Amino acid sequence: MGEPLKMTFLALIVFNLTGMAMIKEIPKEKTGILLVSFGTSYSNAQGALDHVEDQVRKAFPDIEIRWAFTSDMIRNKLKKQNRYIDSPAEAMAKMGSEGFTRIAVQSLHIIPGEEYESLQKTVNAFNHIPKNAQTIRLGKPLLYRNEDIAAVCDVLEKIIPDERAGGDAIVFMGHGTPHPSNIYYPGVQYYLWEKSALYFLATVEGYPGLNEIFPKLEEQEVKTVWLVPFMSVAGDHAQNDMAGDEPESWKSQLEAAGYLVKPVLKGLAGYDEIVGIWVNHLKEVLYEPEN
Amino acid sequence: MGEPLKMTFLALIVFNLTGMAMIKEIPKEKTGILLVSFGTSYSNAQGALDHVEDQVRKAFPDIEIRWAFTSDMIRNKLKKQNRYIDSPAEAMAKMGSEGFTRIAVQSLHIIPGEEYESLQKTVNAFNHIPKNAQTIRLGKPLLYRNEDIAAVCDVLEKIIPDERAGGDAIVFMGHGTPHPSNIYYPGVQYYLWEKSALYFLATVEGYPGLNEIFPKLEEQEVKTVWLVPFMSVAGDHAQNDMAGDEPESWKSQLEAAGYLVKPVLKGLAGYDEIVGIWVNHLKEVLYEPEN
Amino acid sequence: MGEPLKMTFLALIVFNLTGMAMIKEIPKEKTGILLVSFGTSYSNAQGALDHVEDQVRKAFPDIEIRWAFTSDMIRNKLKKQNRYIDSPAEAMAKMGSEGFTRIAVQSLHIIPGEEYESLQKTVNAFNHIPKNAQTIRLGKPLLYRNEDIAAVCDVLEKIIPDERAGGDAIVFMGHGTPHPSNIYYPGVQYYLWEKSALYFLATVEGYPGLNEIFPKLEEQEVKTVWLVPFMSVAGDHAQNDMAGDEPESWKSQLEAAGYLVKPVLKGLAGYDEIVGIWVNHLKEVLYEPEN
Amino acid sequence: MGEPLKMTFLALIVFNLTGMAMIKEIPKEKTGILLVSFGTSYSNAQGALDHVEDQVRKAFPDIEIRWAFTSDMIRNKLKKQNRYIDSPAEAMAKMGSEGFTRIAVQSLHIIPGEEYESLQKTVNAFNHIPKNAQTIRLGKPLLYRNEDIAAVCDVLEKIIPDERAGGDAIVFMGHGTPHPSNIYYPGVQYYLWEKSALYFLATVEGYPGLNEIFPKLEEQEVKTVWLVPFMSVAGDHAQNDMAGDEPESWKSQLEAAGYLVKPVLKGLAGYDEIVGIWVNHLKEVLYEPEN
Repeated sequence: MGEPLKMTFLALIVFNLTGMAMIKEIPKEKTGILLVSFGTSYSNAQGALDHVEDQVRKAFPDIEIRWAFTSDMIRNKLKKQNRYIDSPAEAMAKMGSEGFTRIAVQSLHIIPGEEYESLQKTVNAFNHIPKNAQTIRLGKPLLYRNEDIAAVCDVLEKIIPDERAGGDAIVFMGHGTPHPSNIYYPGVQYYLWEKSALYFLATVEGYPGLNEIFPKLEEQEVKTVWLVPFMSVAGDHAQNDMAGDEPESWKSQLEAAGYLVKPVLKGLAGYDEIVGIWVNHLKEVLYEPEN
Repeated sequence: MGEPLKMTFLALIVFNLTGMAMIKEIPKEKTGILLVSFGTSYSNAQGALDHVEDQVRKAFPDIEIRWAFTSDMIRNKLKKQNRYIDSPAEAMAKMGSEGFTRIAVQSLHIIPGEEYESLQKTVNAFNHIPKNAQTIRLGKPLLYRNEDIAAVCDVLEKIIPDERAGGDAIVFMGHGTPHPSNIYYPGVQYYLWEKSALYFLATVEGYPGLNEIFPKLEEQEVKTVWLVPFMSVAGDHAQNDMAGDEPESWKSQLEAAGYLVKPVLKGLAGYDEIVGIWVNHLKEVLYEPEN
Repeated sequence: MGEPLKMTFLALIVFNLTGMAMIKEIPKEKTGILLVSFGTSYSNAQGALDHVEDQVRKAFPDIEIRWAFTSDMIRNKLKKQNRYIDSPAEAMAKMGSEGFTRIAVQSLHIIPGEEYESLQKTVNAFNHIPKNAQTIRLGKPLLYRNEDIAAVCDVLEKIIPDERAGGDAIVFMGHGTPHPSNIYYPGVQYYLWEKSALYFLATVEGYPGLNEIFPKLEEQEVKTVWLVPFMSVAGDHAQNDMAGDEPESWKSQLEAAGYLVKPVLKGLAGYDEIVGIWVNHLKEVLYEPEN
Repeated sequence: MGEPLKMTFLALIVFNLTGMAMIKEIPKEKTGILLVSFGTSYSNAQGALDHVEDQVRKAFPDIEIRWAFTSDMIRNKLKKQNRYIDSPAEAMAKMGSEGFTRIAVQSLHIIPGEEYESLQKTVNAFNHIPKNAQTIRLGKPLLYRNEDIAAVCDVLEKIIPDERAGGDAIVFMGHGTPHPSNIYYPGVQYYLWEKSALYFLATVEGYPGLNEIFPKLEEQEVKTVWLVPFMSVAGDHAQNDMAGDEPESWKSQLEAAGYLVKPVLKGLAGYDEIVGIWVNHLKEVLYEPEN
């Protein structure tokens, strides 16, 4: 991850109060991208992150790309496998120390929830550290304003598998959170229903849950349900809570209720169209003036 | 607004470096409530704010209550009528100067939108002013987390006029905003539909608008539509955009489409049950530890 | 204090999402000066502040001038005399509310001590309040960097009364503080000694005190001591601690030790040359780019 | 530098909204010390820093110690020698990532100048980063309040070489700065003169310089001058600007003026008594409540 650092210095000669010359090095403008994910320890899911990096590199071939994972637990787990991934603070501190003057941080989060807020506070804090990159800006998560949500829902429709038959329902599995940003899940459901009464969005840990979906599937006389992760990567939640064989998994619950269930084990970060939206958010922070 | 200030001082005798005694006055703990509204220049709507003040006074009879309006335009308009209402910053600065040590600020906003965010930044800033109230906390707007939204929707069902017949639709008119918090409107719609397919929520300036509601009214074979403000006060938007006689008002548009329209000209702040939710948010900031 | 507010609005017509026109008022650029003093309840000392205002008005005839006092105790005392002076936070909040877009705050403090730091935090906080003046900057106190101190010491020499005879000592009375900025007092003494071994600086509440001066007066074989306030105004400290008749006043102590004592009851703010330095600091924040 | 990390986790079982158990690891309280120096590339001067670490370890045998250098230039120089030293931000980010919950940062600076202020801003910023050590506090530099300065001057007297004869002058060489904190140099001179008229303090880059000392040496009829670094380490400035053989070094200038010059090539960090003051500042942030 990341090419070797190439930085040259300009020399500036400064004369101090007593007339003695001092040499100060001035780094040239140096821009970097920091991609931030919750992180994953699934090698399968790591593939989706590699896919993001490839797309970002294609869009910004001249800008060095770094990674950070926000989850302490996942970083500790990887450390035991001798894979060292930085926290966002470590990554920004290192980049500052290596002479980056401008950093575009792109969150690979879906909603502006607790993790995104925490990253935003970290970025804000780093903008107050004197000896560091002068400008650090944070790209929006996948969902933010009305226009973003509309664009994401257009893309969601495109990633539905071709094998899906007319009356099959799609149930997107979001994470859900006690944080106020959970409102994005019932909110996005509105946008999806404007497209089809057979598209549903439920969450593992928030509202609505799978329970709210059962009566709606019945009302629509659904026979077959496609389960699609509404998460960046198809990690633990997708593998187990969604598609696992345990009786409380969504697949098991839906099968027990008589549905034919077809899980899709691919996270949103695996789709070019979705990554394209994050790339657009990166373009905003790299090329557009702030507010 | 507000009883006369009663504050006594404790005298503290301090000896300075040279042994000379200085007297320092220590103010006793003094708590105040600051109610913050966007503001209104409609005397009718002012009644709803007076109603809030009455309810808050009943709940906290020993705590002095102050007001601030966030809208410059409305404060300037009132100034010309010799009514001087403080901005939130003016109110907090005065309270600090008068010796309040603890201020509970309660936003009468509906969603955590741009106005609420601006108020939050103002509160945060005042918490960094050394010579002011030591603790200033901001109560949540009407809608915040999942539980709040559920509680509000329970109350919304109770404020529906008794005269409403079985098949009549209720269309709540929210404000709407280009700010990401607009997601609350489609999001709350989900909660309302869990109660009845005849409850709708649309916005004047955001998404969804009235246009999104027409096909749904048709699908539900609605004949009569009740228009209810989903705003704190029944001010300009309710009087004109919702219930006005101009051709582009919601009433006119719905009547033109053949519906019988019954507007309710009462803002949410006029209902005891709604004010009760803001009072609960005040109790949280007054009596519960932070986080 | 302050001429009547003259502000005109530009009207901006904005079209919202639904095509309805809204009118937004845009205030023109409007600059104000806020002079901040610890405050005084001595009418005599108030004269020195009026002198500052006159000088500032001469330097910036087109800019409105406001005042704030930082001392709660003095503002409370004046309130009982029906004189209402704002705290710095009140003054900035009012100016923001009245449409000032740029405020130059000038501290009339001598050193960057606790009072100045508190004012700086207040100014910083106000720069984070969204609906307020866009730019608020704080002018440096009288003493700050090496160059300022040198300039002030040049002026101090000029304000020595003409009646002073050759061998008379000058003892400047500073306030002194447990805050680290107390270092300015022994520090400035260095600059004064570079001018004359007969110039002394001591403090009421810090280090050095009068005790440290006695042996030095003796060493210089001084007969007559001029006492000069090294404070903005000749208030309580100058009247009582310096020139009072109580046995512990500096005058009494020096007389008891056999010196002829000549107190000068005029604060630094009473001298044009000193005010000129604060005016220079105002020019910096009004006309020079930040940093 | 630093023993291997030993940290154990407590397991906390959390039940999420859907009843599924999650395991959260809670790190035990874990305290660390971060020593921060400008840095040096002189191996000799590095010895003084090792001496500090030894003393700090003796005082706090159970607390892990880390290092950071604030100078980019020195860290870059060392990197070319394959010595990797963290910047303060890197060190704090790593410590946060490794589970430290409380960090006591001790600046090895002499005055609260630009470098200290920059470190303070970095510490403040890190206290606003959500996923990091909960409490990071910064120990005061060597000189801060009146009491600190008095204590330091007592120690300075003790470190004067025993070989110094009665009439020999001591000239301490401080760094000096255009930052307002330069006032500490003339200020500390006051304290030193209270001890002896033969103790002088001048600076390389600030005020006073060596030029201000010449007339005073003459006045005191000095023959021999001891040059003592008033800096943490005897690095570049001490070796060259103070004791070098170049004509503009202090040694050369003083010799040219006819003095016998005896330079001491040991930084303040090399003396147990001085390190004891920094250790006291560490004790304050580790054991005393904040303000």
